[in-house]
Amino acid sequence: MTRIVVDAMGSDDFPVPDVVGAVAAAREYGVEIILVGDEAKIGPVLAAQNADRLPVRVVHAPEMLTMEDKGMALVLKARRPNSKNSMAVGIDLVKNGEADAFVTAGNTGAASVTAYFRLGTIPGVDRPALAPIFPTATGSCVVTDVGANPDCKPENLLQFAIMGSIYAQKARGVASPKVGLIANGEEAGKGNELVKHTYPLLAESGLNFFGNIEAKELLGGKVDVAVTDGFTGNVLLKSSEAVAKLLMDKIKEAILTGGLLAKLGGALIKPSLKGIRQMMDPSEYGAAPLLGVNGLVFIGHGRSDALAIKNAVRVAKNAVEADVIESIRSAIEKSLQGK
Amino acid sequence: MTRIVVDAMGSDDFPVPDVVGAVAAAREYGVEIILVGDEAKIGPVLAAQNADRLPVRVVHAPEMLTMEDKGMALVLKARRPNSKNSMAVGIDLVKNGEADAFVTAGNTGAASVTAYFRLGTIPGVDRPALAPIFPTATGSCVVTDVGANPDCKPENLLQFAIMGSIYAQKARGVASPKVGLIANGEEAGKGNELVKHTYPLLAESGLNFFGNIEAKELLGGKVDVAVTDGFTGNVLLKSSEAVAKLLMDKIKEAILTGGLLAKLGGALIKPSLKGIRQMMDPSEYGAAPLLGVNGLVFIGHGRSDALAIKNAVRVAKNAVEADVIESIRSAIEKSLQGK
Repeated sequence: MTRIVVDAMGSDDFPVPDVVGAVAAAREYGVEIILVGDEAKIGPVLAAQNADRLPVRVVHAPEMLTMEDKGMALVLKARRPNSKNSMAVGIDLVKNGEADAFVTAGNTGAASVTAYFRLGTIPGVDRPALAPIFPTATGSCVVTDVGANPDCKPENLLQFAIMGSIYAQKARGVASPKVGLIANGEEAGKGNELVKHTYPLLAESGLNFFGNIEAKELLGGKVDVAVTDGFTGNVLLKSSEAVAKLLMDKIKEAILTGGLLAKLGGALIKPSLKGIRQMMDPSEYGAAPLLGVNGLVFIGHGRSDALAIKNAVRVAKNAVEADVIESIRSAIEKSLQGK
Repeated sequence: MTRIVVDAMGSDDFPVPDVVGAVAAAREYGVEIILVGDEAKIGPVLAAQNADRLPVRVVHAPEMLTMEDKGMALVLKARRPNSKNSMAVGIDLVKNGEADAFVTAGNTGAASVTAYFRLGTIPGVDRPALAPIFPTATGSCVVTDVGANPDCKPENLLQFAIMGSIYAQKARGVASPKVGLIANGEEAGKGNELVKHTYPLLAESGLNFFGNIEAKELLGGKVDVAVTDGFTGNVLLKSSEAVAKLLMDKIKEAILTGGLLAKLGGALIKPSLKGIRQMMDPSEYGAAPLLGVNGLVFIGHGRSDALAIKNAVRVAKNAVEADVIESIRSAIEKSLQGK
């Protein structure tokens, strides 16, 4: 049975969404759940879940990392062998083979740094990359990196492409994932220096390289994996979220202040818009893998609700069962042999 | 009377929107219009506009630049003294003092390169920057650069900030424009190497520096000017447009396929959504200035309609009357004296 560690202290409203979502996943997906965190806080929530017959257990971790954990202090906590925070304890369970994947809705930076220092990277991987799913007109797309690496070299982007492609193929069932390189124009030759030097590496990589893409192609569903440096990816992610939110807020406001007929109209279209709300809801996508560390780690939104945690466990389970780590290991090894 | 040159061969549907919009601007804003382009194409459109008593004249330019003009061939056309394309002829009118500003809805790259080589830069300006207006929750924001410079140095971003700030103040009437630096997090210290090295320059610049911003702050209206390199700015611009379009398309689709009640609801909310369609319509913002060249040049969307051209003439007129070039010249001079 696949064993997933869930950080009970991760989400903004911890431990309720984390525990409730994890228990729901145990019930629905037939996985074993290990909750890490403060037993005193987890106990009462777990007791209310009728989880006695489910494979759910608690591993006590008296401390937790928060949004305040950053910089050198975070590095020290991430490296210290006897760290007692829930992320360190949970990731150590994966490292020691007691669990198959770790899921958290906590501070992305803290989770990435903790995973990096405790698990190390897959041999040959220079930098891990965060790889969330973007909704598109026709489905979805893996975008990587979105923040772990603000400054990148072409070789990093090549590795992000290899890892993103494996992830799309193994964990998401895309037969031959099309890989796009995010640029300021579709034509080959467009881009900043990083893109211009990455393009030939991707073209010769053996990946199913689509070429340069702009947001239009990404959101239009033209590729399965979109590759960029962590700074640009972060701006892309944040601007996409912010534009969608601004637009939905403005529409809501226009309907609410538009008089009786507008309100009636708003009520009438509400059911039809359910699919769009779902498409835009990060809960649907669960959590993003941190690709390249030597173990499966999934990081979700701080705003995760129980549904998001449950879905995060599902995507983690898929990755475990598809043996994503082994596939990345062998793909990276192969790509380095070519040199 | 302010004299604005309008490229009659600029928009995708040239010369109709270009000529009709320019004539409307002459009528509405009391500016003199000089249409540059193929007389044979402009003549019939102009004749239908009842423009005989308006200060509108045509300067013949038998050639035009298109989306196909790029690379070295474009540079040669941009530099050749006797180039006969409408952009070169129109920009030369500004250079020779026969007009005060040039407006085009043609190829952005072609217009930028032509302006750069024919007008040169304002003394001390290293690189010109394209500075369009983004709609925000509370109004709008100048974002610069969005594509002219895919690779930048911190000194470039400082100059973009100075020029964007002058433009917001003089041409858009913002008393003390707040300047934000686009980053992957709001805290000082966040960013890629470029952002980290730009931050102290902006902090010591004497500008009203707000600090690092993410898309949330930008679209929330927290700043009047947002500064970034042209690659990131381009990704930000394109992703914002693409997300807005995807969302509006999905909403439309949901309403149209949602049955009779959804269709009725859609019809009822339509009037209330007018403001949002306007907010998202690039026509409302006219055109973006190419800041830093030694003359006023405004570049609009290829998709510009007559309203967009008319609005572009209005923003050009504002910039002429506010003497934006002189203000940028003196601000750049001042910033270089500090060294």
